[in-house]
Amino acid sequence: MSTFGQYFRVSTYGESHGRSVGCIVDGCPSGLQLTESDIQPQMTRRRPGQSALTTPRDEKDRVAIEAGTEFGVTLGSPIALRVMNEDQRPKDYGGGGKNIDAFPRPSHADWTYLEKYGVKASSGGGRSSARETIGRVAAGAIAEKYLRVAHGVEIVAFTSSVGSEFLFPPTREHPTAANNPAFLELIDGVTRERVDEFLPVRCPDSTVCKRMEEVIAEFRDKQDSIGGVVTCVIRNCPSGLGEPCFDKLEAMLGHAMLSIPATKGFEIGSGFGGCEVPGSTHNDAFVKAPAVTPAEANGIAQLTPEQRSRRPRLTTKTNNSGGIQGGITNGAHIYFNVGFKPPATIGQAQQTTGYDETEGTLQAKGRHDPCVIPRAVPIVEAMAALVVMDAVMAQSARQSARSLLPVLPQTVPVGESASTLMNGRQ
Amino acid sequence: MSTFGQYFRVSTYGESHGRSVGCIVDGCPSGLQLTESDIQPQMTRRRPGQSALTTPRDEKDRVAIEAGTEFGVTLGSPIALRVMNEDQRPKDYGGGGKNIDAFPRPSHADWTYLEKYGVKASSGGGRSSARETIGRVAAGAIAEKYLRVAHGVEIVAFTSSVGSEFLFPPTREHPTAANNPAFLELIDGVTRERVDEFLPVRCPDSTVCKRMEEVIAEFRDKQDSIGGVVTCVIRNCPSGLGEPCFDKLEAMLGHAMLSIPATKGFEIGSGFGGCEVPGSTHNDAFVKAPAVTPAEANGIAQLTPEQRSRRPRLTTKTNNSGGIQGGITNGAHIYFNVGFKPPATIGQAQQTTGYDETEGTLQAKGRHDPCVIPRAVPIVEAMAALVVMDAVMAQSARQSARSLLPVLPQTVPVGESASTLMNGRQ
Amino acid sequence: MSTFGQYFRVSTYGESHGRSVGCIVDGCPSGLQLTESDIQPQMTRRRPGQSALTTPRDEKDRVAIEAGTEFGVTLGSPIALRVMNEDQRPKDYGGGGKNIDAFPRPSHADWTYLEKYGVKASSGGGRSSARETIGRVAAGAIAEKYLRVAHGVEIVAFTSSVGSEFLFPPTREHPTAANNPAFLELIDGVTRERVDEFLPVRCPDSTVCKRMEEVIAEFRDKQDSIGGVVTCVIRNCPSGLGEPCFDKLEAMLGHAMLSIPATKGFEIGSGFGGCEVPGSTHNDAFVKAPAVTPAEANGIAQLTPEQRSRRPRLTTKTNNSGGIQGGITNGAHIYFNVGFKPPATIGQAQQTTGYDETEGTLQAKGRHDPCVIPRAVPIVEAMAALVVMDAVMAQSARQSARSLLPVLPQTVPVGESASTLMNGRQ
Amino acid sequence: MSTFGQYFRVSTYGESHGRSVGCIVDGCPSGLQLTESDIQPQMTRRRPGQSALTTPRDEKDRVAIEAGTEFGVTLGSPIALRVMNEDQRPKDYGGGGKNIDAFPRPSHADWTYLEKYGVKASSGGGRSSARETIGRVAAGAIAEKYLRVAHGVEIVAFTSSVGSEFLFPPTREHPTAANNPAFLELIDGVTRERVDEFLPVRCPDSTVCKRMEEVIAEFRDKQDSIGGVVTCVIRNCPSGLGEPCFDKLEAMLGHAMLSIPATKGFEIGSGFGGCEVPGSTHNDAFVKAPAVTPAEANGIAQLTPEQRSRRPRLTTKTNNSGGIQGGITNGAHIYFNVGFKPPATIGQAQQTTGYDETEGTLQAKGRHDPCVIPRAVPIVEAMAALVVMDAVMAQSARQSARSLLPVLPQTVPVGESASTLMNGRQ
Repeated sequence: MSTFGQYFRVSTYGESHGRSVGCIVDGCPSGLQLTESDIQPQMTRRRPGQSALTTPRDEKDRVAIEAGTEFGVTLGSPIALRVMNEDQRPKDYGGGGKNIDAFPRPSHADWTYLEKYGVKASSGGGRSSARETIGRVAAGAIAEKYLRVAHGVEIVAFTSSVGSEFLFPPTREHPTAANNPAFLELIDGVTRERVDEFLPVRCPDSTVCKRMEEVIAEFRDKQDSIGGVVTCVIRNCPSGLGEPCFDKLEAMLGHAMLSIPATKGFEIGSGFGGCEVPGSTHNDAFVKAPAVTPAEANGIAQLTPEQRSRRPRLTTKTNNSGGIQGGITNGAHIYFNVGFKPPATIGQAQQTTGYDETEGTLQAKGRHDPCVIPRAVPIVEAMAALVVMDAVMAQSARQSARSLLPVLPQTVPVGESASTLMNGRQ
Repeated sequence: MSTFGQYFRVSTYGESHGRSVGCIVDGCPSGLQLTESDIQPQMTRRRPGQSALTTPRDEKDRVAIEAGTEFGVTLGSPIALRVMNEDQRPKDYGGGGKNIDAFPRPSHADWTYLEKYGVKASSGGGRSSARETIGRVAAGAIAEKYLRVAHGVEIVAFTSSVGSEFLFPPTREHPTAANNPAFLELIDGVTRERVDEFLPVRCPDSTVCKRMEEVIAEFRDKQDSIGGVVTCVIRNCPSGLGEPCFDKLEAMLGHAMLSIPATKGFEIGSGFGGCEVPGSTHNDAFVKAPAVTPAEANGIAQLTPEQRSRRPRLTTKTNNSGGIQGGITNGAHIYFNVGFKPPATIGQAQQTTGYDETEGTLQAKGRHDPCVIPRAVPIVEAMAALVVMDAVMAQSARQSARSLLPVLPQTVPVGESASTLMNGRQ
Repeated sequence: MSTFGQYFRVSTYGESHGRSVGCIVDGCPSGLQLTESDIQPQMTRRRPGQSALTTPRDEKDRVAIEAGTEFGVTLGSPIALRVMNEDQRPKDYGGGGKNIDAFPRPSHADWTYLEKYGVKASSGGGRSSARETIGRVAAGAIAEKYLRVAHGVEIVAFTSSVGSEFLFPPTREHPTAANNPAFLELIDGVTRERVDEFLPVRCPDSTVCKRMEEVIAEFRDKQDSIGGVVTCVIRNCPSGLGEPCFDKLEAMLGHAMLSIPATKGFEIGSGFGGCEVPGSTHNDAFVKAPAVTPAEANGIAQLTPEQRSRRPRLTTKTNNSGGIQGGITNGAHIYFNVGFKPPATIGQAQQTTGYDETEGTLQAKGRHDPCVIPRAVPIVEAMAALVVMDAVMAQSARQSARSLLPVLPQTVPVGESASTLMNGRQ
Repeated sequence: MSTFGQYFRVSTYGESHGRSVGCIVDGCPSGLQLTESDIQPQMTRRRPGQSALTTPRDEKDRVAIEAGTEFGVTLGSPIALRVMNEDQRPKDYGGGGKNIDAFPRPSHADWTYLEKYGVKASSGGGRSSARETIGRVAAGAIAEKYLRVAHGVEIVAFTSSVGSEFLFPPTREHPTAANNPAFLELIDGVTRERVDEFLPVRCPDSTVCKRMEEVIAEFRDKQDSIGGVVTCVIRNCPSGLGEPCFDKLEAMLGHAMLSIPATKGFEIGSGFGGCEVPGSTHNDAFVKAPAVTPAEANGIAQLTPEQRSRRPRLTTKTNNSGGIQGGITNGAHIYFNVGFKPPATIGQAQQTTGYDETEGTLQAKGRHDPCVIPRAVPIVEAMAALVVMDAVMAQSARQSARSLLPVLPQTVPVGESASTLMNGRQ
């Protein structure tokens, strides 16, 4: 369905041909300062037309808060967000001999929507169009605002591969970037500002970014398309998030990411490469947590004393787990990869078969992205924010409920040295 | 939480130290013939102790139907399934100087459960133990029974990599198995019986299976562990399943698979490799669907005439999409990979830090799997069945509701040749 | 939360001070002909200002479909509905010495919203204002359209009491109207057109309506307010609706009705009066169902042959059950009462205590309904439609799933005469 | 479905003919001391056979905790509860010429279950039997334990009418008990111990109880049955509970109560009688909250200083609202009525029609309650506990999330005197 989240519940709506697209955010904490200016920046980052590499439509995508705030403060009631559809040009999609109407576009959603619903929108991709992601990004911006203010959470995504150009190519010795010091340093400090210095590709390395730009341009010129991978890091995430056994945090992140159009895969922490590593190497030994995290030393996060006090006392020496163990966050950086296929809509002629079972040739007109990776960056960030926000509220309910119970004399039969500690944590 | 699914809703319970583990299945269609003998085979396939390669505990894992059926037929009421905990040996987990109680086990869930809940089970992994998956497999067997009887659905998983031994190793030219004819032939015909001929590894290729067996034995002898990948195929799945925009079928599959303990990644269809392939190659052109599918030609599926009539009229020439387009099934084989990390519990001594923030050495006693991949096979199948079952019921509600509406004169402005068809499909 | 329904899922938003109010309807069957003209009539019936008895604001309440349809047909994607807030006059609520801001209004939601959210909207009732019901009525109109077209369902509500003036006053002999022939005749044939002949009170009896009108006028003149009861009947509802054990149809109806602002009670069928009647009288004996229902004989319902064939073969001689037995519909008329308290906002001065714990006098300015019953009529109808629609889709999923299973030789050991029949119904 | 609650989620299972009945409770706070002895008392209160007035079966109904606790403390994982079915006597239900199998029992669920599911349980009521309520009572006892320990909540239900014998009969002057001082005094102090002094009827007034006992005996002797009303009070409920707009607390209570078998109506606070009262009388003026509540003065509630500090600073002089305003609790006593119809199963012969559409006579054997009211008392209490518990956790999540936000300079434009206060409450 079009609802995501149990506690911070987002319902989105909208196709490209309708009056507007948008969402309702239900369950947002009251008392949060929120205006359109908190939401618009990510809307603009998502917007096409930021460079010659992305589709040149100039969608304004101005977001309006329709309800749920007053005097710039959230009321606790549903927040409704709305973005007008301004630049439709339906002819581009259906025009040119109308053959786009006779053929379901290969690897697009035309055929399956018709199989599912029996009807389909005439123009563009209807609900399967990229325009659907506007509601996600708008809602994600609200979640991010809360997480940043209340927990110092930072979420940054970037392009880590385009086609076969990798920022951290896997090797036989290092099948996963999880133990690559350069990767770990990058995710420890990278910011959105830094990522956007590498527009339009958003890969935070001059050399690799240049090569990726060339790859994309090459595919654009061939009227072809290419896929790639977005990597995302979540810093300062509270420990204890994730709801086993079915709603483990990586399961929710995977759900969220694989719901983004054009995704093909999801990896948490060491990922598929980590499956090739011995357990003795892969296990993340515990160490005493430092008083100041690297992010704080870098001046990225500013935590209140209370936030600091909620920090776990142990952390891990390595981080193959990607900040999640047993489906629950441990306070270390959460990082993951999301793979996006090459866009299905290409300028080249394609041999295929029509609704009437007759073979023929389909040639798309319109404006098409040769690569969605750069635009996917804020969408990945938004979905990450929605997952973390929902998990924060679930854990808040639990912690708050438990905090009202009397302290137990000793909860579990732990070794002598640990017992004091555990009582203290009651 | 411990509930999965909206329509076919499974709630599981149980730790290794309690009286029993099990589940409640709510929403199962009434009138389905169901006894314990439909469920037990997958319970037994999941059971440890099937060979020297897996943990030697002899858990009987006999399932009992507590409620929801009468005279071997489902009543439509909740079905309760229960498996006794018989072979606990809690000393194995806590013994040996009790140091396992003083240290949170690295990359296990001890620390995060304590961070989350403030208490944790003393013996084994509590709710994070592999024993939690019993409820999943039991519920999955019911879903499978329905899907097989009503739709001819076949779900088969197998081991496709252990460590760096791959059944279909990715190459520079073929970054994904999706276009490898040997892979496509395998998933078109492989059965559970065939997979179990390759016990204990469950990789359906004599040569590769042998190598994998050696790899696992090597890690066992080093008191180390190793990960790998399970591949799963779903055949004869009805078209139209999946609930955009957030509950696309691959999103639900990803959610389900990443909720299985020890998973690190999920790929649908061409997966991460597919992100390196040009769109012009990756797109799956449509072709007229054959009267008989390969599975039927192989005698695997026996469909009723009614099932046959619900088949889509088009299929795709290639299948990089993995049977899902726009988040919705198109009737082609669904296939995906699930990566499992090396088990966290290893016999080797590990330097780590205790609950009391003191460094020390942890050495696990107990019985430990050097590799979970073979046992994960039926768990992956079970979760796949739960996802498809839920999606089938969601789509049933939609289709059935739509079927009562009058036929529209013409629903969408399609090209002339297609319009007749689409009216016909109303 | 602000979401209602599992299958036909409605999320509403909006306060009186924001840009707009509205809703998203997710899960509506595709292929339904739907334009604003299907929705507007109930919006207009809900609108204040229809007579001297109701509040004189002239809200236009024009509804716009923002997304989810094309060419007047639903696409299966979320339907977004929006109504501008046009006529705010915030001064009326906050004005007059501002004392309305210093005092939480007695029996209104000011105090509890502040207790819950820590903030509250300044003008009017914020989310607790009657304007919140616009989204319900809009969504309900879509549900009604589907139910009418697909199942011939008719939902009609009317005013059955105002203060102590009852359409069917309970008596010692007849503590419930359920056995009153005049009541049964009324609910069998009453239509919305008929009810609206008795505007502004909407009690379909000239004499009683007149008395009620006088009661309301009397309270209006005293700057006081009065409550009453709305009775609602649902005809031609399919049998088999309702999801035991927790989501029985009467439980869902009760939930829906008691979520309407100002409600104090809900009764199904014979209701509280029925609790005073002996079981031997209260039990509804079964009889063979007639070929034509009274509603059809009255020319109210026109069913297709297929709808007719889905009719239960038995019905009940009496209908104390109100069409629901064991939480499941039996095909007979569903009827229920909803009690509404006197509106909390009255013109009279009230002694009360302020936010600062100081006693004082509160005198509301603004425009206030002396009685909400007449305007509540379309809101009750809307919520009834949402409940039935959700239950229809739940049951569709079940029936459709079961219909694909092979017929069992004999499902339950029934008496000899009945056994044939039950096989036939498999 | 068979799941209730979003945060404290209860899934029940079980028919009378199966191995066991029970439930899974997901989301219970960890660290709560819990053993079977916390649950058994309410199981026993629910048990039939407590006197000659109720059904004489001696069901032992011993509850076992299967999972979710260790060393008598909840772990935060799902708690599974199980009660064996011991005393089935299926012949009683189906025996005696088997005519009970040929006829759907009037006003029972036989017919509608068959309409819904196409199959039905052979013995007793299957899932519609009163045995289904065991899972509710068991789960409710856990919720109650938490609410009592963490919030001092007290939930007490009692019989307030049987047939036409009322504890507080409505009069023309006092159509509702809400303003009756005797009623208010009773709900302020009544305890379960006091209620059980009036076994088997559970009406806490010697005179009325005696009359009720006679009424029930009279109906038993006539092989007939009679209904009645259970009144329930919830004391010390935190303010701020309830989730507008659809999940107002009274809507959730109504949903919960109307899901109990045999219920016909629900009233909150002044109820239907309150709809006859002028607004000027019905409005509950605010007063400063006393330092000690009447319950505390009576020595019933013992609150911690922290619980005391969470008390609202205002309360209401009268309590027509029943402790809920705008769908949200205000801290005053919550009270409500639940109407139960006369049991459908009676010993008298009934003229009715069989599954084969043939008229005939049905005469039940078996053991039947002439009145369910006394046994319904603990079921009403259990469902009340489940509703409040779920609402407490929802509000915990909200409050806890909001508490991490910086204090706003001034949230709403309130009158001067109130503004300081409101800042303070941020």
